[in-house]
Amino acid sequence: MPGNIITIGRQFGSGGRLIAKKVSEKLGIKYYDKELITMAAKESGISPEIFEKVDEAAANSLLYSMVIGMYGATSRMTDYGEVSINDKIFKVQSEIIQKLANGEPCVIVGRCADYILRERTDMLNVFIYSDTEKRIDRAVNEYGIQSKNIKEFILKSDKKRANYYNFYTGKRWGASCNYHLCLDSGVFGIDGSVDIIEKAWNSL
Amino acid sequence: MPGNIITIGRQFGSGGRLIAKKVSEKLGIKYYDKELITMAAKESGISPEIFEKVDEAAANSLLYSMVIGMYGATSRMTDYGEVSINDKIFKVQSEIIQKLANGEPCVIVGRCADYILRERTDMLNVFIYSDTEKRIDRAVNEYGIQSKNIKEFILKSDKKRANYYNFYTGKRWGASCNYHLCLDSGVFGIDGSVDIIEKAWNSL
Repeated sequence: MPGNIITIGRQFGSGGRLIAKKVSEKLGIKYYDKELITMAAKESGISPEIFEKVDEAAANSLLYSMVIGMYGATSRMTDYGEVSINDKIFKVQSEIIQKLANGEPCVIVGRCADYILRERTDMLNVFIYSDTEKRIDRAVNEYGIQSKNIKEFILKSDKKRANYYNFYTGKRWGASCNYHLCLDSGVFGIDGSVDIIEKAWNSL
Repeated sequence: MPGNIITIGRQFGSGGRLIAKKVSEKLGIKYYDKELITMAAKESGISPEIFEKVDEAAANSLLYSMVIGMYGATSRMTDYGEVSINDKIFKVQSEIIQKLANGEPCVIVGRCADYILRERTDMLNVFIYSDTEKRIDRAVNEYGIQSKNIKEFILKSDKKRANYYNFYTGKRWGASCNYHLCLDSGVFGIDGSVDIIEKAWNSL
């Protein structure tokens, strides 16, 4: 086994989730994406709905504080003293990611896993992106997203992920130097991207 | 043949030049790096010494204007009207890169080749980087560079390349979205990086 963990950061609509899933199938290892939300929600006692809203959203976003406030989650904040619900969620997710990484080899999508596991040397950190046109096409035809301004929707989704990553890691989301491998899935396609990640995994 | 051109941008000390050379050997295609300087110098009539000093240096750098002034190259500027020597050199190199790309398949190192050839669809654009410690080690032990402050030397070399790229392309040097593939040669090693680029080339 050349490594144990593959983390995959991804632009919205790049097919990163599907690539991660296919990589895990090809390598015969576990795969975690949304599953992390369910696990962390269970662990924390915070409702999965709130969890999903806050997932990968930066703690310093006023909008998210308002959303959380609207859903009444602030009342739970007293359980964690001065720690905001976003920080609590990040902490719980981090602990789960650490626990999973200490178990069987796996692919983990998003959620700053590359940063959370940064002390490990048996890890491949990947970032996947694509040009906006191809991402619009995927968002509409593969994810079935209906939006009057799909481009704005995609860019906002990326901004949310970037804010979350930058806030919790102090690094820049998508900056090549923060990953071992960055690739344009629009150029290589889903299966081509899977092949390249497999080759990189075997070259660790 | 899956593509025709591979362009390789690289941080100083990342081994990008060696990786590019090995990729060209493995794929049995041509390789151009410093050779571009000789060809362009010949074509322009500017002395190769001046050419090498200005090569991959941004035209808006006062320091470089001074260097060029010191070496008396400014007197040649009248041949090109209002165009600075840096711009002239960029133009000549661009024409040569275009000509080479229209010939046999090849690997081209640096010099904004990815931007110059941006209309092509048969091209793989790669960026290679590594952490500073590994680059210091390579600079000292492989390139034999002797400098009291090798780290500063490396970072200055990168800054020069970045300024040149950013100035002539209007894009950001090393930003993942400007390349099809970015990889950390410190993690994959020289041969591992060659293998990944070969796989990406075959996945185009």
